[in-house]
Amino acid sequence: MKKIELIQNILEANKATAESNRATLDRNGCTAVNIMSAPGAGKTCVILRTLELLRPEIRVAVVEGDVASTVDAEMVRDASDAVVQINTKSMPETCALIADMIDAALRKLPLSELDLVIIENVGNLICPSEFDLGEHLKIVISSSPEGDDKPLKYPLIFADADAVIINKSDLYPYVDFDREKFKRSVRDLNARAPFFELSCKTGAGIAEWVDWLRRQLPKK
Amino acid sequence: MKKIELIQNILEANKATAESNRATLDRNGCTAVNIMSAPGAGKTCVILRTLELLRPEIRVAVVEGDVASTVDAEMVRDASDAVVQINTKSMPETCALIADMIDAALRKLPLSELDLVIIENVGNLICPSEFDLGEHLKIVISSSPEGDDKPLKYPLIFADADAVIINKSDLYPYVDFDREKFKRSVRDLNARAPFFELSCKTGAGIAEWVDWLRRQLPKK
Repeated sequence: MKKIELIQNILEANKATAESNRATLDRNGCTAVNIMSAPGAGKTCVILRTLELLRPEIRVAVVEGDVASTVDAEMVRDASDAVVQINTKSMPETCALIADMIDAALRKLPLSELDLVIIENVGNLICPSEFDLGEHLKIVISSSPEGDDKPLKYPLIFADADAVIINKSDLYPYVDFDREKFKRSVRDLNARAPFFELSCKTGAGIAEWVDWLRRQLPKK
Repeated sequence: MKKIELIQNILEANKATAESNRATLDRNGCTAVNIMSAPGAGKTCVILRTLELLRPEIRVAVVEGDVASTVDAEMVRDASDAVVQINTKSMPETCALIADMIDAALRKLPLSELDLVIIENVGNLICPSEFDLGEHLKIVISSSPEGDDKPLKYPLIFADADAVIINKSDLYPYVDFDREKFKRSVRDLNARAPFFELSCKTGAGIAEWVDWLRRQLPKK
């Protein structure tokens, strides 16, 4: 029981910091989007394509979460208005970004000059679903080569998603991925999230996703 | 400090149970292999192909770890000598199999009638690297569509691997995956793990991997 209690305490403290992050973002008219996926589903690539279409009308910062390395921050640096890299360590409790890390990142960003903060979470379909960061939207990316059974195996992250992106649609001809089965499995968990099928590589479907994202932002 | 201390206690307790698991396996002349990867890298498919070549000479049980569902256990049931499904919950401390779960699984298996226990870990490149299960070999599978930067981003799991499998080699023509860059990144972390490039879909390269695995088992 002691262990479970401690985990509850961690999650409650995280929730309080997340609410404070959300208030800070709201005060600055800034929307935050938490992008989550398995390793290698294409989060960074989706973010780069999204930045291409949103900027310069929408001013966007990116917060990069990784266990180690600055590979992703280097990739988005020139494509965004600001970037912060967070390196979590690989201890079990930090297998995802937590609200404290986002608090620290937000302090480094010129929030009043931004419209959108895109948070690229650590590549993981389990831990990120536990930690509210103070974001306004949760997006889950699943890529076609991962297979259509991911919602069955990692239900929580799909249940809480505000939108589900299926990336790497260019690989449909070469992998066994039943799109309808995947969508039905998500729908059983989540009645409302729209689906976007896209390919970062070819650019197919990116515009529909970015149009939807733009419509979620407050009118300027 | 309190939090870190508790995590240390969890890891120490886990280590003791892992040593006990290993002693139980050794007493029964049974080798355990821990298969780890990101979600959708093809762990179950690699295991099915491996079972095809090992059995019936080698008697193999499979322990399936998933947050939810029995999808994988159903797939391997007929192909193995015994199967146990473990459903972890999605609390932060159980984003991987832990030694206690393997202890429970081993109690359900006819160990004296088995040569090999294949443990399919939860799809996750972070948490599993923290928890010794009592296995004899740690295998990491990375699939080509995930990209060649995974060792940079998830160093610990690659550093500790006894072998690294690159799966989905059939997708090389369709994805950007620099095999030499990937291998160099692993080599910087791990001087000894052999590489096996294979395709579960076509069967290419499976025999080399299974030959190596067979050579790791004690002579009967």
